[in-house]
Amino acid sequence: MKILVIGGMAAGATAAQFARKTDRKAEVTIIGKEPHPIYSKCGLPYSLSGRIPTFERLVEFDEQWFRQFRIGLRLGTEATSIDTSARTVTACDLRGGKEEVVPYDTLIIATGGHPWMPPIEGAYSAPGVLKEGVHLIRTIADGKRLSGNAWRDSRAVIIGGGLIGMEFAEALSVRGVHVSIVELQHEILLASLDEDMAAAARQIIEKSRTAVHLKYSAESIQGERRSESVRISNTETGEKKEIPADIVVISTGTKANTDIAVKAGCALGVTGQIKVDSRCATSVPGIFAAGDCTEYVDLITGAPVAVGMGTVATRQGRTAGINAAGGRSELPPGILGTRVTEAFGMHLAGVGPTEVQLRKAGIQPVVGRYVGSTLPSYIPGGEEILVKVLAHPDKGRLLGAQIVGTSRVHQRINAFAVAILAGMTLEQFSKLETAYAPPIAPTLDAITLACDVALMKMRRK
Amino acid sequence: MKILVIGGMAAGATAAQFARKTDRKAEVTIIGKEPHPIYSKCGLPYSLSGRIPTFERLVEFDEQWFRQFRIGLRLGTEATSIDTSARTVTACDLRGGKEEVVPYDTLIIATGGHPWMPPIEGAYSAPGVLKEGVHLIRTIADGKRLSGNAWRDSRAVIIGGGLIGMEFAEALSVRGVHVSIVELQHEILLASLDEDMAAAARQIIEKSRTAVHLKYSAESIQGERRSESVRISNTETGEKKEIPADIVVISTGTKANTDIAVKAGCALGVTGQIKVDSRCATSVPGIFAAGDCTEYVDLITGAPVAVGMGTVATRQGRTAGINAAGGRSELPPGILGTRVTEAFGMHLAGVGPTEVQLRKAGIQPVVGRYVGSTLPSYIPGGEEILVKVLAHPDKGRLLGAQIVGTSRVHQRINAFAVAILAGMTLEQFSKLETAYAPPIAPTLDAITLACDVALMKMRRK
Repeated sequence: MKILVIGGMAAGATAAQFARKTDRKAEVTIIGKEPHPIYSKCGLPYSLSGRIPTFERLVEFDEQWFRQFRIGLRLGTEATSIDTSARTVTACDLRGGKEEVVPYDTLIIATGGHPWMPPIEGAYSAPGVLKEGVHLIRTIADGKRLSGNAWRDSRAVIIGGGLIGMEFAEALSVRGVHVSIVELQHEILLASLDEDMAAAARQIIEKSRTAVHLKYSAESIQGERRSESVRISNTETGEKKEIPADIVVISTGTKANTDIAVKAGCALGVTGQIKVDSRCATSVPGIFAAGDCTEYVDLITGAPVAVGMGTVATRQGRTAGINAAGGRSELPPGILGTRVTEAFGMHLAGVGPTEVQLRKAGIQPVVGRYVGSTLPSYIPGGEEILVKVLAHPDKGRLLGAQIVGTSRVHQRINAFAVAILAGMTLEQFSKLETAYAPPIAPTLDAITLACDVALMKMRRK
Repeated sequence: MKILVIGGMAAGATAAQFARKTDRKAEVTIIGKEPHPIYSKCGLPYSLSGRIPTFERLVEFDEQWFRQFRIGLRLGTEATSIDTSARTVTACDLRGGKEEVVPYDTLIIATGGHPWMPPIEGAYSAPGVLKEGVHLIRTIADGKRLSGNAWRDSRAVIIGGGLIGMEFAEALSVRGVHVSIVELQHEILLASLDEDMAAAARQIIEKSRTAVHLKYSAESIQGERRSESVRISNTETGEKKEIPADIVVISTGTKANTDIAVKAGCALGVTGQIKVDSRCATSVPGIFAAGDCTEYVDLITGAPVAVGMGTVATRQGRTAGINAAGGRSELPPGILGTRVTEAFGMHLAGVGPTEVQLRKAGIQPVVGRYVGSTLPSYIPGGEEILVKVLAHPDKGRLLGAQIVGTSRVHQRINAFAVAILAGMTLEQFSKLETAYAPPIAPTLDAITLACDVALMKMRRK
């Protein structure tokens, strides 16, 4: 049995690993475009800040590891086409240009995505060549290029105020760069948090030396050979500003790499990414897909979702690998979207759709908000924690939660993730016995108290 | 409507507060034996260590707060008898000795417990008077007395190696006292953790300057007027040792204060504590009970459980208060026993029965253990975390979990608490999307990986 994986990052390498575990005799091969074996793309901001000492440290399993697991690894190699009737993939060595035809019995497409480039005048110095100082970041090479430009007291503009934008904004701040964030919408982070929660986060960011420009679109990057400034324009008033920018980081989302899948006949979903089922099977027999190139459904709304998080990529990789090797593994019926990041001394976390996303799906959620502390009031060291829960108005089934705090946020969001996955109600969750000890957590935690607030509102209706 | 509460600590004060919220016109009164309004008994070790600056800081709501909520507070007053036909309680002022008869429509008994004193020769200098240096700790007065004896380089013996024993052992260590722990059983902490997990914890404790004597019973306390040493005897070999002890802390569990309830006709359960139903009602109409004086059932085994944790006391107090005031509130059908403590730089946590407790209840659990890290391997700062899960052998329903680590343990145990309360299986939990970000948590967390280990074992059977 020959199992071939296109793409060697989170989804692909995980798929290969689980294919190997499932069928110990199969021939498992990865074709990877990048020169490195699997590394953490999510770790790039932390290599930039220095918290992870080098970019090379991001590599999670080295070539020796793959040899030990008997997984073939062709790095610096691009898969250019799939012949679904012959069950072969044509691969091209990016250094030498040599082409090779690789046979497969089952194929896993894990081609990931690439940064989406909005139409900004002056971003390129030549076709396909970014102007000096202008950065799209997806790879170790991209990270190193940015790091080389991140001089103390230089000025950076981050275009796009999402989670990734925040992480790079903070990393550059740590390096002593003066950062401005430009966001098209009326608030940052709206893909992850509701406006009220995001505003709380932004106020903390603005207390650092970081400027946030809301409702501005980036129109052009000035500078002859390298970036000197960014011209932005208010989306409502049309007012224009020019922000000095030695560095421009464009962080406006990603676009899935689907060309090879489309040519092979794999159906795309409404998000433009490869449709997969709960086994990670595509529409083409024998071809599975996993990670940022795929589309799955939201557990709560049932709406199609473009996959774009390491959490999901890893779990899809596992499922795709097991199924491609003849095992049986199924994903839950949808994505929870559990998410967290740390930036500017805050932890921001969410799970499930936001309030806005729920309303779009026709659900008018009951909302509970609670500002609590991580510790009982009588012991020093407690930190404020803001919890928001969203529940179905009928029976109070938990649909989503968001938390902003300075610490101890991530595992609290996991408790909500469990509850949402299990279909628990506000009433059930509010009675949860949470772990209590004075130096660790209060007897009644903000996670259950937020549910109490929502319950009271629900009962008043 | 007159609602009377006997006992003003976690269960009683919470009951009074929720009675007030439920019926804004009722007359709510607390009769409390202690001179202080509600304070955190769980916080006593941290006032001893200095982490909480004073013992008085443990008070959670002061008399002013009770006035504001229109809750009558009779401190330093002991309820001595209940006349259930007249619906009155006789209360005695402990300072003046004045007796008073207080009427009620509904009554909540929240009399808590007192430390259980094992038969140790030489503990008392006169009947009812502990020898100098010998301590039973339940109140602020007890804590202050111990604090006054805790001189740097003095020597303390803790009798009883449970969670509370560990907390006092650590607090005394922080004060510079040389501590020895004497435990009757073959391992410490067995009421909270299984042997394998407790052993991991003990090894860390022993690396500090704290000695642990397993399988030893304390036979006598030597010293004429004050404690000088403790004689202990090996429960298997009979071997005797004498440990120098300027301080002896006896931490061998508590006994519920049930006298007044028994005299009023409230039925006790097999644990010797007051039986309550899911509404916290006792067997006597109009009388509710909550907290450490009660017995409820274990959610998993259905076995009667002596309540003895702040977490449960608070939740029972809420339910008792709401029902006593004519509202409607029900506890979940059993106790999860979510527990956590911090001692000697470790966090120890558990939820649900231990493996031993499950076996006693006739369940041979599937066990999964996983040693993971709090962070991905590529980022510095990760700390080892040891996770154990227990599941039903048939369909893998989660029954219990235990975690030992140096940090980030408590909310992980809460995620398991949610799953157990929701009746989730290993299979469902193992697919949980946990929150991931490099500086916060790995893509696959030890909590789901421990479930994977258990799943593999279950499938192999």
